[in-house]
Amino acid sequence: MPPKDVIVLRYGHRPYRDQRVTTHCCLVARAFGASKILVEGETDPVLLETVKSVNATWGQGIEVGFCPAWKPVLRGLKMEGYAIVHLTMYGLELEKTMPKIRNARRVCVVIGSQKVERGVYELADWNLAVGSTPHSEIAALAVFLHELFKGRELRTGFAGARLAIQPNACGKQVVRADR
Amino acid sequence: MPPKDVIVLRYGHRPYRDQRVTTHCCLVARAFGASKILVEGETDPVLLETVKSVNATWGQGIEVGFCPAWKPVLRGLKMEGYAIVHLTMYGLELEKTMPKIRNARRVCVVIGSQKVERGVYELADWNLAVGSTPHSEIAALAVFLHELFKGRELRTGFAGARLAIQPNACGKQVVRADR
Repeated sequence: MPPKDVIVLRYGHRPYRDQRVTTHCCLVARAFGASKILVEGETDPVLLETVKSVNATWGQGIEVGFCPAWKPVLRGLKMEGYAIVHLTMYGLELEKTMPKIRNARRVCVVIGSQKVERGVYELADWNLAVGSTPHSEIAALAVFLHELFKGRELRTGFAGARLAIQPNACGKQVVRADR
Repeated sequence: MPPKDVIVLRYGHRPYRDQRVTTHCCLVARAFGASKILVEGETDPVLLETVKSVNATWGQGIEVGFCPAWKPVLRGLKMEGYAIVHLTMYGLELEKTMPKIRNARRVCVVIGSQKVERGVYELADWNLAVGSTPHSEIAALAVFLHELFKGRELRTGFAGARLAIQPNACGKQVVRADR
């Protein structure tokens, strides 16, 4: 049984420098089945607008929130029964650890941008490596969610979509989804 | 049997605007088992330096090249027997199509940034959707390679590494790999 609810926490978002990368994180969280992403940092209206526009066109998939500090958020989620999974290249191997994580019904995935504080490692129930070599928090999030949901997330539709894509061998086939 | 060789073509890189995202693409290509990434656009010394530094520390995993135009490159690779896979949300479903792609021994994966020209769709042997909803070329590349290699890519080491990570439950354990 897949977890009922997945929340992503984007650690250390810097409004200007990280805007594009965090937008990718939000859209990946949406596309791969998370219900919410919390961005640590000041409210970023451009980021919000982009995600809102994707939700309006392609269906409601993700809620975006901002929070001033990660610690009370993670502590609160832990109290509510979320398993905290921190994605880091220093963590345990994905393949060996994922079967245990799949038992959790509520998961909070933490992804970093800048250097992540020691406290995140300590609060996490799992420090998990999607590969023990540097790459991208966007990629790590996608592969983690894809493994967590065993690929089923890619077959899930989005409620309230205005448009939908019909898979096509060579071209773009977009249909109205709201009538 | 996994493909022997995977080359990534990054379509439409714009040196300043795309530098950070293309760096993620390069590091994902390296971490998930591609041997080479070709970036369409002017040579970008900052990008090259970042990848060179990762290769020097964590092991040789990827070669980066730049090319002025995608068309002759794709045509050349096709002549050499590469199956061209273009990742686009408008393409065929990953789950259904991947078993056929896995038969190819040489694969060139095309990932876009800005709007991709019609000609790419036409030259591709497969237009493939890692989810039929907008997200991120970085995420699409990672999940594609992870599926192509069936997760084995994450267990592969890198030759000539100076440092290596020992997977750890709560902290950072880095060891010398060159002695």
